[in-house]
Amino acid sequence: MSANMGAASPTTKRSGDVLRTSTNNASDGVGGSPTTKRNGDVLRTSTNNAPDGVGGSPTTTQTTTQLVVVGAGGHGRELADIVRAAAAVDLDAHELLGVVDDGAPDRPLLARMGLRFLGRLDAVIDRPVGLLLGVGDPDTRAALDRGTDFADVPSIMHPTATLGSESELGAGAVLAQGVHVTTNVRIGRHSHINVGSTVSHDCRVGAYVTVCPGVRLTGNVTVGDGVFIGASATVLPGVTIGTGAIIGAGAVVCTDVDEATTVRGVPARPVILL
Amino acid sequence: MSANMGAASPTTKRSGDVLRTSTNNASDGVGGSPTTKRNGDVLRTSTNNAPDGVGGSPTTTQTTTQLVVVGAGGHGRELADIVRAAAAVDLDAHELLGVVDDGAPDRPLLARMGLRFLGRLDAVIDRPVGLLLGVGDPDTRAALDRGTDFADVPSIMHPTATLGSESELGAGAVLAQGVHVTTNVRIGRHSHINVGSTVSHDCRVGAYVTVCPGVRLTGNVTVGDGVFIGASATVLPGVTIGTGAIIGAGAVVCTDVDEATTVRGVPARPVILL
Amino acid sequence: MSANMGAASPTTKRSGDVLRTSTNNASDGVGGSPTTKRNGDVLRTSTNNAPDGVGGSPTTTQTTTQLVVVGAGGHGRELADIVRAAAAVDLDAHELLGVVDDGAPDRPLLARMGLRFLGRLDAVIDRPVGLLLGVGDPDTRAALDRGTDFADVPSIMHPTATLGSESELGAGAVLAQGVHVTTNVRIGRHSHINVGSTVSHDCRVGAYVTVCPGVRLTGNVTVGDGVFIGASATVLPGVTIGTGAIIGAGAVVCTDVDEATTVRGVPARPVILL
Repeated sequence: MSANMGAASPTTKRSGDVLRTSTNNASDGVGGSPTTKRNGDVLRTSTNNAPDGVGGSPTTTQTTTQLVVVGAGGHGRELADIVRAAAAVDLDAHELLGVVDDGAPDRPLLARMGLRFLGRLDAVIDRPVGLLLGVGDPDTRAALDRGTDFADVPSIMHPTATLGSESELGAGAVLAQGVHVTTNVRIGRHSHINVGSTVSHDCRVGAYVTVCPGVRLTGNVTVGDGVFIGASATVLPGVTIGTGAIIGAGAVVCTDVDEATTVRGVPARPVILL
Repeated sequence: MSANMGAASPTTKRSGDVLRTSTNNASDGVGGSPTTKRNGDVLRTSTNNAPDGVGGSPTTTQTTTQLVVVGAGGHGRELADIVRAAAAVDLDAHELLGVVDDGAPDRPLLARMGLRFLGRLDAVIDRPVGLLLGVGDPDTRAALDRGTDFADVPSIMHPTATLGSESELGAGAVLAQGVHVTTNVRIGRHSHINVGSTVSHDCRVGAYVTVCPGVRLTGNVTVGDGVFIGASATVLPGVTIGTGAIIGAGAVVCTDVDEATTVRGVPARPVILL
Repeated sequence: MSANMGAASPTTKRSGDVLRTSTNNASDGVGGSPTTKRNGDVLRTSTNNAPDGVGGSPTTTQTTTQLVVVGAGGHGRELADIVRAAAAVDLDAHELLGVVDDGAPDRPLLARMGLRFLGRLDAVIDRPVGLLLGVGDPDTRAALDRGTDFADVPSIMHPTATLGSESELGAGAVLAQGVHVTTNVRIGRHSHINVGSTVSHDCRVGAYVTVCPGVRLTGNVTVGDGVFIGASATVLPGVTIGTGAIIGAGAVVCTDVDEATTVRGVPARPVILL
């Protein structure tokens, strides 16, 4: 069994506990004025509160990243909300241009959300925009990422999410509302940690992983690329989950899971396909 | 089977992702000064951070709603805390007058909490106050709401709760600490989403629903009126739960639940009454 | 069966709903300026937002408590992050000197975290510092606390945690990221409530209790000293858990648990040791 982490290439590294909501209230005097639009590097300014003094300089000039969400279904619309909430607290860091979808999205709903529908993926594929992958299926995100020549894309944290010291998020990784990632964690490229989930110390999460709402990854858990972890599942300390495995909703995973294997239940056991 | 949503008449509609805690830090320059008491419409000013520019005008004059919590047990006291925390960040939006209870509440405890005990429900029934229903049982809340002629009552969000774009809360609905409701959700009249629960995209939750702590409603879930969902339960995407059903604590609901039916377990199955 | 609460001697008492992240934004005009370093009593200034007007005076002079985390493993490093995040919003309240560990910690990792390694526990045992116990095992924390002559140690709340009215935290108690403790709760000395867990109204939690991530203690739950509650476990209203019991991950505890007993499953049942 192999939990291949090779595709995970985290590009965001932060020192100190990052709490996005407090960037404007930094007690150390380097934070921006609450009513002033800031120019800065979203990743580095988010460490203004770091008690160890390694916060970045808010006055660094950097081009805003223009972002497009791929997928206008429920997952994509949630992601668009997260991007806009993150942009609202780090104004110049990135800008959401709109959403693309090759299917038939609910365009009146997108309009009510104030989300611009940009057409099919082809419409933006050659433009210098970062593509955030608003689809819940790991394999689809992997295919979208590998099959195209994307511009750089940042990781995205909702303002209510936190990221601990020496933890890193890969390109396009997403932490949704109320997600807390503690210390010395790696989360791979285009992996999505959904609303209310937590990832504890020393976890290694690969690329294209989908963590559904309310999941608990306890300490020292290793999750291979493309794993899907159902809502409210719990993975106990030190467990390794192989590439492409599927963890059922509410499962309590006490032992290692082989790659491409589905487990479920309390405690979790492999599903036997007769 | 019918999930009757008829009684749900959401009166609060918000555009953009609402994060109450940041109303005073609005980066778009329309937020109030952090140390200034504001006059405004609590519901509309909470959209000051909306990235789509639809935030309300903080200078609109509006009468403060005076509120009373019905029930001084654990649920009612928790609700009183939520109301006071919400009032602390939206000062003039509403004012908690106190609690009423037809039983024998712990009056010394209420005094230590700084909560005024106003006597029995009869004492406030004809006054122009909004009544928030601080009882956990759905049927009791429905009876209280239907049997009396209440003044308008707002929905209440704890400052740590968030409400996504195009999501709506009915009159008297409550989002407790750490609750995250994502995009395009409806939550009906006097439904309570308890501490740490999450409601994902496109859910339709009826009136008088009780969602206990740590529940996960994933995408596209429909919940009928008067449903009780036990702590840590999980409802999978697309599932419909019929009116008056009861979901056991920790249940993982994978298939539709008939009205007035009790289910429990992983996966959830109907409880057979012999 | 006895749930011995004798060792719990909570020393922190708060009125009103405490939300640490908003101390600098207090709407009632007594909060500090967002960019000003404050001198004050961490425990009392955290009630500046209390709607009942009992908040402390931010100008009271008090010596900063110097703190050391005992244990540099995953639990200790998470605790160090929480201490630093709390210090960042209450600047003069306490100062983290570093970590001690009698084993062989990952010193390069500690260095990257900006955490000073101070050597073995003996190195600080006679110094006037508060010792926070960064180990997950309840018995080890109890032994460390009882076997040494420690200086006073405060309770610690991550800025994203909240504590309700008339709730109290014992010395050295810790509320991690996203923890919400509602009203009239007692949490004993050196008990740790881990990331994403919630404790509802009227709970009584003893000393040296470990609550793992994502646990739900619903209303009126009593937890004896030294209990270990596994990740994602749920304890139903009114249940009493005896001293030294162990609750398995994901368990749903519907009935009382005897002391020194291990239960697991949905619903939770005692583990029979053959």
